[in-house]
Amino acid sequence: MSSVVVTGASGFLGRPLVAALLRRGCSVHALGRSAIPHAISAQVRWHRVDLFDRAATREVIQGIRANGLIHLAWETAHGRYWQSSKNLDWTAASLQLLLDFQDSGGRRAVIAGSSAEYDWSGAPVLDEARTPLRPASLYGKSKNALRELVEAWAPLAGLSWAWGRIFNIFGPFEYPERLVPRAIRTLQDGRKLAFDDGAQIRDFLHVDDAADALAELHTSSYGGAVNIGSGEPVAVRDVINGIAECAGRPELVDYGARPAPADSPTRLIASVGRLRDVVGWSPRGHLRDRLRETWEWWKADAARTTDRNR
Amino acid sequence: MSSVVVTGASGFLGRPLVAALLRRGCSVHALGRSAIPHAISAQVRWHRVDLFDRAATREVIQGIRANGLIHLAWETAHGRYWQSSKNLDWTAASLQLLLDFQDSGGRRAVIAGSSAEYDWSGAPVLDEARTPLRPASLYGKSKNALRELVEAWAPLAGLSWAWGRIFNIFGPFEYPERLVPRAIRTLQDGRKLAFDDGAQIRDFLHVDDAADALAELHTSSYGGAVNIGSGEPVAVRDVINGIAECAGRPELVDYGARPAPADSPTRLIASVGRLRDVVGWSPRGHLRDRLRETWEWWKADAARTTDRNR
Repeated sequence: MSSVVVTGASGFLGRPLVAALLRRGCSVHALGRSAIPHAISAQVRWHRVDLFDRAATREVIQGIRANGLIHLAWETAHGRYWQSSKNLDWTAASLQLLLDFQDSGGRRAVIAGSSAEYDWSGAPVLDEARTPLRPASLYGKSKNALRELVEAWAPLAGLSWAWGRIFNIFGPFEYPERLVPRAIRTLQDGRKLAFDDGAQIRDFLHVDDAADALAELHTSSYGGAVNIGSGEPVAVRDVINGIAECAGRPELVDYGARPAPADSPTRLIASVGRLRDVVGWSPRGHLRDRLRETWEWWKADAARTTDRNR
Repeated sequence: MSSVVVTGASGFLGRPLVAALLRRGCSVHALGRSAIPHAISAQVRWHRVDLFDRAATREVIQGIRANGLIHLAWETAHGRYWQSSKNLDWTAASLQLLLDFQDSGGRRAVIAGSSAEYDWSGAPVLDEARTPLRPASLYGKSKNALRELVEAWAPLAGLSWAWGRIFNIFGPFEYPERLVPRAIRTLQDGRKLAFDDGAQIRDFLHVDDAADALAELHTSSYGGAVNIGSGEPVAVRDVINGIAECAGRPELVDYGARPAPADSPTRLIASVGRLRDVVGWSPRGHLRDRLRETWEWWKADAARTTDRNR
């Protein structure tokens, strides 16, 4: 049975990733800085460790001696993570984690990258082989620098590696301030949603699908970068309309009430040929259904929160 | 008075750099992993610390609270450093050092880069503005990745920074296996020097000059990468001939006795316009004189070693 270390295992993408690995029969070692989230699974071995503490992390990694690693942990503070100096801390900690994982006998590592590594100013579809890697943000530059080093080092160290470039994901446990949960919660509260024109075209994928794709990428032997996306161009307005449909209150959405962000590209779509043909993975289900599931999850979450506050 | 932290201060380039900073009236804090080299100077505050131990390094850096930092320390194991995984350790440790330096109130950092960051396959002269950064080695890739991140982060953090790309340097305390000391020691022993055709064109600079240029770069406010070189194209054969002249034994050099390394570029010369015009620094003295000084230093070193072994 394959044993896999997962960093950021209690996070938005980490939770469904652990589930996806368990479905594949992996023995999962979850690393996290915070307390053990009991909700995940009793089958998971949980290790509480600060990845910025190299000595402590090294000790945990050497104790586990796993074959596999899926490294998700990174700075995620909403809005601020783009230019935060924490990106440098995470680049350093990631290099050290990979060195220590390989040194402990690790065989295959999959690291979470980002669509932000690409040049966003040009091509309508972001492609692993053709789109230039010209990140604009410190976040994108840090991920890209890490990927360059892993790409150069891993073959020398005999480590199998892959890099999953995540696009727009949504679902349970997302940061409430982000697009989809903000829209859902506003409409569930019966409040008006002031929005821009919603014309931007994006690549939306349910977080469970993204997690499943990452688990499949880890299971495969593919070496290199792979986009993790749906490949479906969808206007942000269509996502908002899907949510408004769940609410049955389309009149609450006020398009054009806010200006569109000046520096936001009109179109960010993943080329998914490599994910489909080489990894053999495609998304299941339709966006509308996935949005409805997410709507229901947030409704249940609000009920749980209300219960707790009583 | 400006206070400057120097890493790798007991190394080949570090020793003359400390001297160059003292000449400029700086208060120097030298960081090194090994025992204090008494030879450097009594005016230097020495701090013994392992830069791979972030907590210990951070404590030292926060205790000093220097304005300046010149970061030289890196993997230097002769021959092996090009593809060593230690390059990743050094990239990580360098990021952490810079974060902690800036956090402790640091104002200006100068970091040692390398000609190995450039694409070596094309231009006859390697230029900061025009030559593509396409490093072939893990060493070059690591330096380049670090530079990319510092370039993106430093303006956000309000840190002034510069990056000195070192070319071929020679002088006292060089690794004995490297080109110049190997030639000098072989000829001083009266042994035959088996060499390739010596046709490669390189940019040679005495280590004292390189150190002086780095100190001047630190003193300047220039932000960005600057080549640290002589700008003079010299055939390796001419350097060897200069050394053979010191020996008075030109017949000991056997050109063509070895094949030239297959992957070694024919020509690596620094464009020095930026160093001269923006930093205001040019090398002093002639290569032949500098080689003779170096010859004398190794002769004295051999005498010292013999004395010690008696």
